Amino acid sequence: MTGLTIKDIIITPIAATDPPLLNAAGLHAPYALRTIVEVVTHDNIIGISEIPGNSDIDDALEKSKEIIIGKDPFQLNQIRDAIESHFDSETTAQRGDAPWDQRKIVHVFSAIEVACLDIIGKILERPIVDLLGGKRRNMVPFAAYLFYKYKGAGGKLEFGIDRNATGWDAARQAEATTPEGIVKQAIFMVKEFGFKSIKLKGGAFEPQQEVNAIKALYAHFGPNVPLRHDPNAIWKLETAIKHGKSMEGFLEYFEDPVRGQENMAKARQALKMPLATNMCTTSFEDIPKSIKLGAEDIILSDHHFWGGLRSSMELSRICSTFGRKLSMHSNSHLGISLAAMVHLGAALPEVPYALDTHYPWQSEEVIVGGRTKFEEGAVQVPSKPGLGVEIDREMLKILHKNYLDCGLKKRDDLVEMRKVVPDWEFKQVRW
Amino acid sequence: MTGLTIKDIIITPIAATDPPLLNAAGLHAPYALRTIVEVVTHDNIIGISEIPGNSDIDDALEKSKEIIIGKDPFQLNQIRDAIESHFDSETTAQRGDAPWDQRKIVHVFSAIEVACLDIIGKILERPIVDLLGGKRRNMVPFAAYLFYKYKGAGGKLEFGIDRNATGWDAARQAEATTPEGIVKQAIFMVKEFGFKSIKLKGGAFEPQQEVNAIKALYAHFGPNVPLRHDPNAIWKLETAIKHGKSMEGFLEYFEDPVRGQENMAKARQALKMPLATNMCTTSFEDIPKSIKLGAEDIILSDHHFWGGLRSSMELSRICSTFGRKLSMHSNSHLGISLAAMVHLGAALPEVPYALDTHYPWQSEEVIVGGRTKFEEGAVQVPSKPGLGVEIDREMLKILHKNYLDCGLKKRDDLVEMRKVVPDWEFKQVRW
Repeated sequence: MTGLTIKDIIITPIAATDPPLLNAAGLHAPYALRTIVEVVTHDNIIGISEIPGNSDIDDALEKSKEIIIGKDPFQLNQIRDAIESHFDSETTAQRGDAPWDQRKIVHVFSAIEVACLDIIGKILERPIVDLLGGKRRNMVPFAAYLFYKYKGAGGKLEFGIDRNATGWDAARQAEATTPEGIVKQAIFMVKEFGFKSIKLKGGAFEPQQEVNAIKALYAHFGPNVPLRHDPNAIWKLETAIKHGKSMEGFLEYFEDPVRGQENMAKARQALKMPLATNMCTTSFEDIPKSIKLGAEDIILSDHHFWGGLRSSMELSRICSTFGRKLSMHSNSHLGISLAAMVHLGAALPEVPYALDTHYPWQSEEVIVGGRTKFEEGAVQVPSKPGLGVEIDREMLKILHKNYLDCGLKKRDDLVEMRKVVPDWEFKQVRW
Repeated sequence: MTGLTIKDIIITPIAATDPPLLNAAGLHAPYALRTIVEVVTHDNIIGISEIPGNSDIDDALEKSKEIIIGKDPFQLNQIRDAIESHFDSETTAQRGDAPWDQRKIVHVFSAIEVACLDIIGKILERPIVDLLGGKRRNMVPFAAYLFYKYKGAGGKLEFGIDRNATGWDAARQAEATTPEGIVKQAIFMVKEFGFKSIKLKGGAFEPQQEVNAIKALYAHFGPNVPLRHDPNAIWKLETAIKHGKSMEGFLEYFEDPVRGQENMAKARQALKMPLATNMCTTSFEDIPKSIKLGAEDIILSDHHFWGGLRSSMELSRICSTFGRKLSMHSNSHLGISLAAMVHLGAALPEVPYALDTHYPWQSEEVIVGGRTKFEEGAVQVPSKPGLGVEIDREMLKILHKNYLDCGLKKRDDLVEMRKVVPDWEFKQVRW
């Protein structure tokens, strides 16, 4: 047993090149931060995971070492309880207004859980999906995730351009601030990855412009490519109803048109299409009120935010019990998170909607073998033991150096936006 | 991988001696029926499970062989989906009015799931609790489960008596049809097993007599031994409120005083004590209405009825999400079911109430080493791989012969009651 207990936890913050993507909270910085976690057993089995990067969470992970080192990675219940007790004296709900505002306990536990499941899978010589009851599909479908954006590729080029880029690589650098720009972005992204569904991250421009973009996408791709629009909760209820009505028949679902469960419930009553959320119902604590009000049809889960893969399976049972659908939210991420999302996506009872992923927006990777392949918009479920992906040590060094060099400590889209539009203000409800 | 696929499923119905216990639906037969299931892999790893005995379920298990044989025991999601599709053409909700009326799919899947988890545990050399996230406690507490009963020990003695019996063995044979008889039964059972909580199965005598029994128990055991009363949903709402009020301050919780979620919700509003159920909310399908109405405080789960151990963990998450407590229901059972209950009980986030078990009422066993030991009313979590218990082949033969000899095919307390009281009628609501 000693051989299997946890000997060390290695926490490596990294920064991956991210283009200047717009959203309701501002602008993506030139780098997206992630934290790579390695849990090492005494017999040197290494389990890995990836979570959104934030120096506060990294510090919390650092503090968690003392309670996790020495524990058996199978004892996930004990580890979870220990983390909860450990951070009990601190505020446990530290979310702000933005969807990526982070809660310490779920992030820390998610990081440790996925890494421990990776260890267990390696011991068993089984993919993680088999620890979630086994796979129900071989391919997990994702959606094209369109963004309004400024010109630029991010990273060391900042908002500059690699003029030798072609195809999607060129489109990824291109400005997209109009319906035409969005359609062009979609064409290249869909061609490159084979996506069968398209999501537009909205909340960046005034509503009619974004509605026009949805209709332009519909005009180009036709009725067989499901579309979604996500105003990031920045619309007033009346705006959401007015423009929502004009998008009925065009949207597969409407994501977070308004802020708060009450407003979502009202919008849902008024509109004849499913409403999805990753902003109004974002934790198990939010579920009872969601059910009472009927706040949404679809919960966009995220194992980083919901406390891991097993918790996500529990959320799935809650959704099926209460007639909700489950799909998946994403942040900018690399292949370790993607692998975890795919294992979960393979185990879920149903995947009624292609999952979100920011993956196309990154070009770097931290896993051996480089970028994960998409086939017809879907990712094959890894069959190797555990997550089925391993860290590329050289790339980890490079991306960690990016982190040290770029100076970013947490995501702050407001700060980035002000670099471009100095007097820009965040508003919870803008239109 | 071939070595690990399922080669055979062996289904053995057995009958274990059961005393003439009374409840709202009639009388226990001289034998309690159980079905022992063995799932055998090509490399001859045998996973075992035990479910309530019923020839219809045995037939359904038999029919399931064709879809389960050849499958990998890790692929529990696929196995579950296959069973659901297989029985889709048949009625999936076949419950009647009695709590042990059985639904085919959950029973069949529960039998297969526990046996597969036993196989996985054996491969991993880990107890099943480690497949549920690991144990949160070393001892799982159970409650004394008192029954009104006629004189007799059941089995081949029918309603006869072994006059050489002493202590609990004698008390188990004794008549208990009065408050005094119930207190005497409790004294011997508590002494034998060390239980710290006491449940009285009621619904057998008119309400005031049962209230008197509760008060007699309180008078004897004092305020430090939590008491529960279970009228088996046979009381009218007004009866439940009237007599419930007289038991406020005496009961830890009040179990199924009335029939149906609406009545439970009304009783819950009227009474100042927690209400528990294993009769009004008994499946995931029942949960939304339970939450809407506020039908109970405590769900008494049963992995045989809720589709296995992993589903029970999901139920636990639903309960904690909606502010419900989870405890455990029982039927007459032997050591394989008990082991599964203990693994689950060890993994649950909390065990706020000692779990139900009929175990003291049986004296036979089907597992190697004989009867499971209780220490201070609790059972130690098995640490051996899988369930941690194995079939005693000689006892399996004997108990299977009991089954063949006794001629019972399913539980029917009405038939048994009429052997004693020929004109006895079952009533959904009696008092």
